Amino acid sequence: MLKHTSEIRVRYADTDQMHYVYNGKYLEYFEVGRAEMMRHYGLAYKIIEAKGYLLPLLEAFVKYKNPAYYDDILLVEAKVNELPKLKIQIDYSIKRKATEEIVAEGFTKHVFLNLTSNKVVRPPGFFQDALKSFFDN
Amino acid sequence: MLKHTSEIRVRYADTDQMHYVYNGKYLEYFEVGRAEMMRHYGLAYKIIEAKGYLLPLLEAFVKYKNPAYYDDILLVEAKVNELPKLKIQIDYSIKRKATEEIVAEGFTKHVFLNLTSNKVVRPPGFFQDALKSFFDN
Amino acid sequence: MLKHTSEIRVRYADTDQMHYVYNGKYLEYFEVGRAEMMRHYGLAYKIIEAKGYLLPLLEAFVKYKNPAYYDDILLVEAKVNELPKLKIQIDYSIKRKATEEIVAEGFTKHVFLNLTSNKVVRPPGFFQDALKSFFDN
Amino acid sequence: MLKHTSEIRVRYADTDQMHYVYNGKYLEYFEVGRAEMMRHYGLAYKIIEAKGYLLPLLEAFVKYKNPAYYDDILLVEAKVNELPKLKIQIDYSIKRKATEEIVAEGFTKHVFLNLTSNKVVRPPGFFQDALKSFFDN
Repeated sequence: MLKHTSEIRVRYADTDQMHYVYNGKYLEYFEVGRAEMMRHYGLAYKIIEAKGYLLPLLEAFVKYKNPAYYDDILLVEAKVNELPKLKIQIDYSIKRKATEEIVAEGFTKHVFLNLTSNKVVRPPGFFQDALKSFFDN
Repeated sequence: MLKHTSEIRVRYADTDQMHYVYNGKYLEYFEVGRAEMMRHYGLAYKIIEAKGYLLPLLEAFVKYKNPAYYDDILLVEAKVNELPKLKIQIDYSIKRKATEEIVAEGFTKHVFLNLTSNKVVRPPGFFQDALKSFFDN
Repeated sequence: MLKHTSEIRVRYADTDQMHYVYNGKYLEYFEVGRAEMMRHYGLAYKIIEAKGYLLPLLEAFVKYKNPAYYDDILLVEAKVNELPKLKIQIDYSIKRKATEEIVAEGFTKHVFLNLTSNKVVRPPGFFQDALKSFFDN
Repeated sequence: MLKHTSEIRVRYADTDQMHYVYNGKYLEYFEVGRAEMMRHYGLAYKIIEAKGYLLPLLEAFVKYKNPAYYDDILLVEAKVNELPKLKIQIDYSIKRKATEEIVAEGFTKHVFLNLTSNKVVRPPGFFQDALKSFFDN
């Protein structure tokens, strides 16, 4: 399993006139969680692109549990339960640091796209090699 | 059933370095589809807020089918299949106008929040009255 | 002179908890004004990129005169006073359609960047040819 | 003088298809710089709003010097040279941490708006008291 938690401070730009963080912003917070998780395991997303692959989204899901507010510090946990065979699923849980309330949960699903062929491909060898020791099977 | 289609032109700001529309932007496109659908049926979201209610999201789901690109004109169809009893679900389908390819599909689920009590409430009378004739049951 | 006016409807996503349109959003509105002006004169920005040039910004300035609010229809006027020799300056004026109040004014300055050489260049011939008849000198 | 430097990591969401950080994002980076500077001096913007004041923008200016790229760590320096009498001007300078290149410079000008009267007012006493010792005159 891969699992890592990042901190995000809510910006004024992220709020809307409901005084909540705008619903679409959570997918950006998920991006930060995912990027910092990958970096933590030595495979920054930038490296993946440099090796000729993109990881576009197939699906995204957000469950809004409690509003997040301006200036809140959020803890974004990103987690991968299974070494991906084709699709990679990342699960997220966002908490307000001060109160430990869950703000949002959700997931994204991705595939590897080979930049040269512009085709969907299985997770490349360098990706599997870097991560397989963190999964027990 | 409520159903309405709006047009959105993809901005440069919406793209990312993958040359696609950024994944989180689709929730903003869903917002436009939802807002224009409500306006079409005579109940602009602004009116709902003016009457003392918010419609925050409970859930959002996006299925990315094909990338959207800079300057594409997108057709965002928003649809409500059932007169809401408590939660209101809106379904979306986004097509590239030029090719009719489906770009994304998804849904959002909302509840009514009474601004005075800050409590979740059933859809208020003015909402039901304005819309019930469009549903057949 | 080039001059063209576009309409933008303010999205919920554009607002912040001040109930105003977020200050950074105006640069996105300027983008829309600029893009629609260029399209109006037959030179959509997409064409400029397809011919191998980018038009990155050198400077941007915004003067905030009156707040814009959710659901406002804004009229974005974009204007070029001089056929560019090296830098191109575009001036903007944003009005609230309903009241004709000025919401914001400003400008952006751009240069042509040749995508192949990654160098700043003079405005290319196809650009000058397409636009020079609109300037009187 | 007030002066403080914050770090921002560029998100994928911040990039556009030019592979640069989108021009409008810099005003969001300025916001982060300004917010962290105020927090550093004991006057988080949240406190100012809690005391009944907003600090809307009058003007914003950005000079783009070098592109910022995905995953760059940026150092945002925010600075106030003069204890404000009416308008408050904040100057910004953004550097790429790895290379120390200047990415952008600029300023924003703000006024205090009293939330109750909805009128522009002089900087309130609590603001002057908290900050005057940092200015030498």
